[in-house]
Amino acid sequence: MPTIGDQHIVRSFDEELKRLHDALARMGGLTEQQLKGAIEALEHRDSDLATRIMNDDVRVDDCESFVNEQTVRLLALRAPVADDLRAVIATLKAAGDLERIADHAANAAKRSLVLNQMPPVAPMRSLVRMGRLVQALLAEVLDAYLTHDAEKALAVRSRDQEVDDLYSSLFREILTYMMEDPRTITAGTHLMFIAKNIERIGDHATNIAEMTYFLVTGRKLNDQRPKRDTSALEGAEQE
Amino acid sequence: MPTIGDQHIVRSFDEELKRLHDALARMGGLTEQQLKGAIEALEHRDSDLATRIMNDDVRVDDCESFVNEQTVRLLALRAPVADDLRAVIATLKAAGDLERIADHAANAAKRSLVLNQMPPVAPMRSLVRMGRLVQALLAEVLDAYLTHDAEKALAVRSRDQEVDDLYSSLFREILTYMMEDPRTITAGTHLMFIAKNIERIGDHATNIAEMTYFLVTGRKLNDQRPKRDTSALEGAEQE
Repeated sequence: MPTIGDQHIVRSFDEELKRLHDALARMGGLTEQQLKGAIEALEHRDSDLATRIMNDDVRVDDCESFVNEQTVRLLALRAPVADDLRAVIATLKAAGDLERIADHAANAAKRSLVLNQMPPVAPMRSLVRMGRLVQALLAEVLDAYLTHDAEKALAVRSRDQEVDDLYSSLFREILTYMMEDPRTITAGTHLMFIAKNIERIGDHATNIAEMTYFLVTGRKLNDQRPKRDTSALEGAEQE
Repeated sequence: MPTIGDQHIVRSFDEELKRLHDALARMGGLTEQQLKGAIEALEHRDSDLATRIMNDDVRVDDCESFVNEQTVRLLALRAPVADDLRAVIATLKAAGDLERIADHAANAAKRSLVLNQMPPVAPMRSLVRMGRLVQALLAEVLDAYLTHDAEKALAVRSRDQEVDDLYSSLFREILTYMMEDPRTITAGTHLMFIAKNIERIGDHATNIAEMTYFLVTGRKLNDQRPKRDTSALEGAEQE
């Protein structure tokens, strides 16, 4: 076992893996809180909360850095193979998805600050509903990941279609709203970008679901995702 | 040196690293082509080209998978340290950024298909100009990365502010355009999402610039980026 550059290799590989697992669990919890806070900030027009969410994004980034460093260290010093290698890679990937999720949540919070300077707009209700759905999916998929529950992961994956359907209908709702009252165009564009942030969070939750399946079964889900992203075509359907 | 699971360890570490470098160079070239094609498809309303760009995104994904697999293999089997470890990690990160860049280019191409079904809109000219700037920055940063030119990388990084300024002015231009003629709202929202794609490509080019600096000098750029993203606040400035 190489020890170059590290004087503290006294832990077993399983202990190291457990530490990595715990770091990811903590990162998942933080990310859930960030998403929850971002949606609450939108719903209640709470600029203080939105600012807190923006500032706390760095905590999730720090978690990811820790996971990345530990992963590289484990790969380089322990040279894991088979199941162990899969567990390390899955953690690295899941951490990347969580970081992106938190980033989208922080972006949504940032835009809510702008929206709070304008009169409320009706489609916000649908946006918050979509946010709550994605929040529930994230909770489910984290649970599936941390308990190695492949069935539950597949269930989350199959529900991403609901998110996409909500996104499509929300996109049309916002467009209609802007067309009927052009004074709402600026607010409408921000709502659209937030909706896109939330839709992307759903995609990252799906990534984690697929990673969970791979982690537990050793097989990649090579069939197509149950859905294709058609969001860019909403405008066309609209015409 | 462990050889478990691999019967072909005859190459030297330097040869392996060279292979990884070449794979990244090829991935960089493909990604540049994808971005160039996406911008041309927008400018010339060329739906055939846009479709080709969307379909070819998988080639960039394949490159990233190859780089990822090779990186994990190198880390696990060769346990590199110091400069070698840095080179492997830098390649992994740069490949991730290139994959995201190609993804944004494919998204832009997808939206151009929708725009081609609508009458042309004036702000497209500014969008294409912004696209060309980002295209130039990507070419520069790839050159800096592949030739290990830290100075050139810093120069690219400092120019990301130009992209953000163009994005801000474009965002205002599109908003004004939509407000003056609400029939352009649908096209305008697609332009905004494409502008966001291009702005994000600029961010990823900046990431590669920072990674290049780290690769060459061993030091991280820990000062703040020359700019902060204020795009979400454009709407507020607009009010």
